[in-house]
Amino acid sequence: VTPAGRERIPVGRDGESSVVWLGTGVLESTEELLVSPSGRFLLFATPAAPAAADSVRRALGKRLLLDRTVDDRESAKTLDAAGAIAAEALAAGVRRDDALVAVGGGVVTDVVGFAAAILLRGVAWNAVPTTTAGMADAAIGGKTGVNHPLGKNLLGAFHPPAAVLADPSVLATLPDRDHRAGLVEALKAVWIGNADLAARAEREIPALRRRDAEALRELLGGAIRVKAAIVADDPRDASRRQLLNFGHTLGHALEAAGGFAALRHGEAVAWGIAAAVEISRRRAGLSADEAGRILAALSAIGPFPPPERDPGRLRPFLAMDKKATARGTAAILLAAIGSPRIDPAVTAEEWLDAAAIMSLS
Amino acid sequence: VTPAGRERIPVGRDGESSVVWLGTGVLESTEELLVSPSGRFLLFATPAAPAAADSVRRALGKRLLLDRTVDDRESAKTLDAAGAIAAEALAAGVRRDDALVAVGGGVVTDVVGFAAAILLRGVAWNAVPTTTAGMADAAIGGKTGVNHPLGKNLLGAFHPPAAVLADPSVLATLPDRDHRAGLVEALKAVWIGNADLAARAEREIPALRRRDAEALRELLGGAIRVKAAIVADDPRDASRRQLLNFGHTLGHALEAAGGFAALRHGEAVAWGIAAAVEISRRRAGLSADEAGRILAALSAIGPFPPPERDPGRLRPFLAMDKKATARGTAAILLAAIGSPRIDPAVTAEEWLDAAAIMSLS
Repeated sequence: VTPAGRERIPVGRDGESSVVWLGTGVLESTEELLVSPSGRFLLFATPAAPAAADSVRRALGKRLLLDRTVDDRESAKTLDAAGAIAAEALAAGVRRDDALVAVGGGVVTDVVGFAAAILLRGVAWNAVPTTTAGMADAAIGGKTGVNHPLGKNLLGAFHPPAAVLADPSVLATLPDRDHRAGLVEALKAVWIGNADLAARAEREIPALRRRDAEALRELLGGAIRVKAAIVADDPRDASRRQLLNFGHTLGHALEAAGGFAALRHGEAVAWGIAAAVEISRRRAGLSADEAGRILAALSAIGPFPPPERDPGRLRPFLAMDKKATARGTAAILLAAIGSPRIDPAVTAEEWLDAAAIMSLS
Repeated sequence: VTPAGRERIPVGRDGESSVVWLGTGVLESTEELLVSPSGRFLLFATPAAPAAADSVRRALGKRLLLDRTVDDRESAKTLDAAGAIAAEALAAGVRRDDALVAVGGGVVTDVVGFAAAILLRGVAWNAVPTTTAGMADAAIGGKTGVNHPLGKNLLGAFHPPAAVLADPSVLATLPDRDHRAGLVEALKAVWIGNADLAARAEREIPALRRRDAEALRELLGGAIRVKAAIVADDPRDASRRQLLNFGHTLGHALEAAGGFAALRHGEAVAWGIAAAVEISRRRAGLSADEAGRILAALSAIGPFPPPERDPGRLRPFLAMDKKATARGTAAILLAAIGSPRIDPAVTAEEWLDAAAIMSLS
């Protein structure tokens, strides 16, 4: 693979799979890579990445049945928004062999993907992520959904995009805060699943922060492969896929407690990882050295806004965790970098204790 | 199987399957037959069948986390209604290993099943159909969904209930018009897939109309088995499953043109079958004798309110048919009773012509 080339990464299995195309210049090949059984497309794009949307428009031309803007803010990720997207597609005459194209960050790919899942009981869709978090995580793996006042992604569907076009050159114009939050999600994946790449990425944080094309391509490719391997084992999030939730148990609660406004998702996950590292030291045998490496890397990606630490305000949101079952909330811990563990015995109080003391410089 | 016994009918395949329990007295065994991974249930019931809902309440007792009434009118089958059901479940603390129970007609099982499909990206559910149409068709096969102003079931998901409890004794209190409309759906299935049972059912229409337990059990069991066999071949409605849409292409348009108020679903399907019989005579070789038998049986189940016949008012709704693709709207025709055909070449104008002349005495 040359820097100008592209990688093809299959994600999922059987009837529920995506092909991820990763590389600088992938958006030059939109016409060849986007998938629609009928050849017709309906575009829903964020206003924040006009160049990416323009690439799709130019490539599809008259095959574009509809061209609409979608609100990319977390507060707009609602069931009503998904219903409105579906209604626009129906009014435009969408048929079950047409395909949607979502161009934007995680909010856009989650909500448009969910609209595709419920439209005519499921039409194909394509994801063109325009954020670091979208390329590393949100557009990969088939989870779509919307928020509910009680928590994130509480309504949704497993409905993988047919194709994901991830072009790191799109990230050049992404606001710095969004890029840094997205790097947290990418690092999370390699800390779970690729110790070698994690060590390299930790050394390259300055290059990653300044959006060096090769450093980004290597980390994103590694993150996508980690996720692809886990999703292939457990597409419906019944067991191993929970590993991807490293940093998310407390992260989701921090994000919700801030009204989805104080912290970006990736920023909340950074704090959630800091807490999970504390608990991993005590319960999973994570070494002081590796714990220190993770906290140092997060600090180098930061600083992040201070999180809510009040146990009384965090507790209700921890109880709403989607992974919670009658047996409790499973915690994802690290025995070592690259060696995650699911520990079903971590109580909400332990998370709250860790939230009180977690620290990133 | 004794009249007081129960039949176990598996529907679907692999990870996407239901078990249908059919028989008088099945609701006495609710506790044993309803499925929840956690053992906890959330009940959503129509006010129209209080005895059936009471059976569930008595059987589940303290395992019932929530007990709510759901509007059973077609006009209430909306995305908002599904969202409200999901919100009530979330507020009650639903977890991904809990299960919903829908007690009611097709509207309730469709909308509660859809809420289960999107809640936490899918929780288990159970269907307790309380109408003839629900037992013969709506609760069987995994299609869930809600209506949109542009047409029926335009938003939805494939999400089969874990268990379906169909107790014909519940039908004793169903309004006559609803029962007769439901018989149309049951007959539809055997006309497609079981010529012997169709001939017997046509002779037993007086018994079916007066809700004779044994006649109903035989017809419902036959209809469920026809649907089960077709769904196992094509769970996602890509090809053979379209056969179940016999009478529905025009039927859906008639129902939508009447604002979902003038005709019950089954009544619209009766007219849709009358039109499909006309087209089947010309295009599929259906004999005059068998065409006459179908029309006579429908007439004996009727009369039904007169349908919209104005081509200008029906045409837009035909164009919205969910099965439509770039290649046109596939028609389901009968070469003979028990021998359906998919004919991709029937135009909207042919349906409109048939709508103008179709007749039931």
